[in-house]
Amino acid sequence: MMPRNKHADDNRPPLLAVAEAKQRILDGLGRTATEKVSYGSALGRTLAAPVYAKASVPAFDLSAMDGYAVRGEDVKTLPARLTRCGESAAGHPFTGKVARGEAVRIFTGAKVPDDADVIILQEDVDAMSEENGITITIKSGNPAGKHIRRKGLDMEKDTPVLDAGQHLSARAISLCLSAGHIELEVYKQPRIGILSTGDELVPPGTTPAKGQIVSSNAQYLADFVEMNGGIPINLGIARDAAGALAEALEAHAELDLIVTSGGASVGVHDHIAGDLDGANQKVDTVNQTQIDFWKIAMRPGKPVIFGKIRNIPLLGLPGNPVSSAICAMIFLAPAMAHMQGRHHQDMTFHAMLASDLRDNDKRQEYLRATLAYDAAGRAIVTPASLQDSSMLSVLANADVLIMRPPFDPARHAGDQVTVLPIPRLF
Amino acid sequence: MMPRNKHADDNRPPLLAVAEAKQRILDGLGRTATEKVSYGSALGRTLAAPVYAKASVPAFDLSAMDGYAVRGEDVKTLPARLTRCGESAAGHPFTGKVARGEAVRIFTGAKVPDDADVIILQEDVDAMSEENGITITIKSGNPAGKHIRRKGLDMEKDTPVLDAGQHLSARAISLCLSAGHIELEVYKQPRIGILSTGDELVPPGTTPAKGQIVSSNAQYLADFVEMNGGIPINLGIARDAAGALAEALEAHAELDLIVTSGGASVGVHDHIAGDLDGANQKVDTVNQTQIDFWKIAMRPGKPVIFGKIRNIPLLGLPGNPVSSAICAMIFLAPAMAHMQGRHHQDMTFHAMLASDLRDNDKRQEYLRATLAYDAAGRAIVTPASLQDSSMLSVLANADVLIMRPPFDPARHAGDQVTVLPIPRLF
Repeated sequence: MMPRNKHADDNRPPLLAVAEAKQRILDGLGRTATEKVSYGSALGRTLAAPVYAKASVPAFDLSAMDGYAVRGEDVKTLPARLTRCGESAAGHPFTGKVARGEAVRIFTGAKVPDDADVIILQEDVDAMSEENGITITIKSGNPAGKHIRRKGLDMEKDTPVLDAGQHLSARAISLCLSAGHIELEVYKQPRIGILSTGDELVPPGTTPAKGQIVSSNAQYLADFVEMNGGIPINLGIARDAAGALAEALEAHAELDLIVTSGGASVGVHDHIAGDLDGANQKVDTVNQTQIDFWKIAMRPGKPVIFGKIRNIPLLGLPGNPVSSAICAMIFLAPAMAHMQGRHHQDMTFHAMLASDLRDNDKRQEYLRATLAYDAAGRAIVTPASLQDSSMLSVLANADVLIMRPPFDPARHAGDQVTVLPIPRLF
Repeated sequence: MMPRNKHADDNRPPLLAVAEAKQRILDGLGRTATEKVSYGSALGRTLAAPVYAKASVPAFDLSAMDGYAVRGEDVKTLPARLTRCGESAAGHPFTGKVARGEAVRIFTGAKVPDDADVIILQEDVDAMSEENGITITIKSGNPAGKHIRRKGLDMEKDTPVLDAGQHLSARAISLCLSAGHIELEVYKQPRIGILSTGDELVPPGTTPAKGQIVSSNAQYLADFVEMNGGIPINLGIARDAAGALAEALEAHAELDLIVTSGGASVGVHDHIAGDLDGANQKVDTVNQTQIDFWKIAMRPGKPVIFGKIRNIPLLGLPGNPVSSAICAMIFLAPAMAHMQGRHHQDMTFHAMLASDLRDNDKRQEYLRATLAYDAAGRAIVTPASLQDSSMLSVLANADVLIMRPPFDPARHAGDQVTVLPIPRLF
């Protein structure tokens, strides 16, 4: 038997920077097809075509306040006495003409009569009743146009109100409705296969035998995929054996992406990379696999794989639950956004550190931390004292991740650090 | 006919502070009943009882690295030559004894053999093969316990891992599974009736006639209610008439909360307050209504009503879409959290202002703004130049709300201001 040193690390590629890994994942992913959906099921989808306003909104000049619509020439000298000639209420526009010396009672949201150009607030008017024909006294004036929402203020007919690539939030959908649309052209929901790997895993609801643990990553990833607009497909638990990946994919040719957790390292019992990169030639020939990278300069989460099997992209996340969840936030969220035709940008902020941090090594770090506020309302972040990547209890109670670049110097209590708020349901 | 001055504002209560309004809403709301749900449908729900660990996690000391498990006494002088006596892999624990001079090959996640207390990393070992019985050479040592995840590190058997009131994020559900639970005791989803009011409104998909507009708030609120864990029930569009509210509630006694949009002001055509506070005695007697408040010191969103009708709490939001959406974020989100047994805390941060802001008046202000980053990665917020509360196009493109307290002095480009990130799908 040939002497082999299984442990040498020298011929491995250097650690890949997080940003480059993210870009290479996006470069390796296509977009889903498009379809039309009704507004009631559009939340979280992404527009595949721009949305144009079918009509101007508002469709007419309208009053932003309750008061009286008058002609500016009639209120040049105050007080002015005018005759109430009618009323314009929301949904019940005044259709007559406003003659000299006349005023139209007007309410918020109502059409401004064509001949009126000034809105007098109701508190600046003495009126005896709400009846037409009475005389009212205007005590204070207003510049022409003030408190009038002009036709087209929110959107002009036939102009784009949202671009392709727009993530459909509740407020964006509301805008589409206002623009006259009830069907929207969106990217299809990507179908994401989720595969857990590891001989130690038993499904939720099973009492683990000696040496076993309950699999929890698959459910995390299923919830995560749904929140990011995808359809999760549970592929179950694959055992630690060469070829197990290909086996799990039988009858799942329709997937847009496969996400695995565990088995992503390069140990003797980690087979995801081996199944992809052709270390096992037999599997490779059958499955047309290729690997892009497998080691990233981040903590937690160094062993992350990206490759293809049977021409389906595969993102291999680490098995430790915290590493898996954080790598999902950093890589899977932008990947799923990209597949749905939109750009994902994490929102980050600065916050004040509550305790010291020692200098960072070559890996980008994502520290679990809780958020509080000082008396002045400034955000204070406290990194958890234990940052082990197996500790779900710490992650479940974290509000933010403190992001530290490689070789970040030591930080001290009171310093500002960059934080990534964890979305509430992630 | 008695002279009446419809316009006097003097006998109205002063504007209510946002924080006090929020507290009075919470005080007026009960909690929903509880039920058990399966982990697969627990996302976004709130725990009604603490979750205890059914077993310690990990259930045994395990190795955090690939390497060799040895007895500390055997590696006091280095290099040390030991005999490989077995293997411990994840899911396949080594069950024998480790005698003096022996080493067990061990992999990440595997149980540490009882007699071993030191993990030697594989890169610190020369080994000719992966076979038992061979001699291996330990080149570098490690302190006892290093790279060992101790039994109970994440959770100890029979101790609480999550408290009642915990919002069930994907990571919290993952923790519950790890703790051995597949059913969770949670608060029921509140049933939220959504009623739009206004004679000018037509349903989505209808071409508005002169003076009409498409109703978009109800869909916003339905999506918002779902994202906050509730069940939206669309009550349609009520007309601007006294008693319309009570009419819309016929056959909806099962609601936990009614949310209205529009008609919340005190104009002649705004009837929500009137329907509640007994201005119309006939309606009041029949419907047992009461009102708490209706004017809040905030912009947008001054006319917000909170009261009860037929003993169902009612939150009356303004009709302008931006006011309605922002009031939902500020009042409805914490209200729904409270009904589900949890405390809602907005996450706010500071960011640098890109343009000047004039001094604020007596109302708390929520300015729509976009977020960008400078070269140093600092968050820069740019308030939209138009802040009209009818402009959905501005809200749909906003990333954050700049929060300004009453009487906030003028702010200048470069100043730090408080921002509330808008959740992506809100």
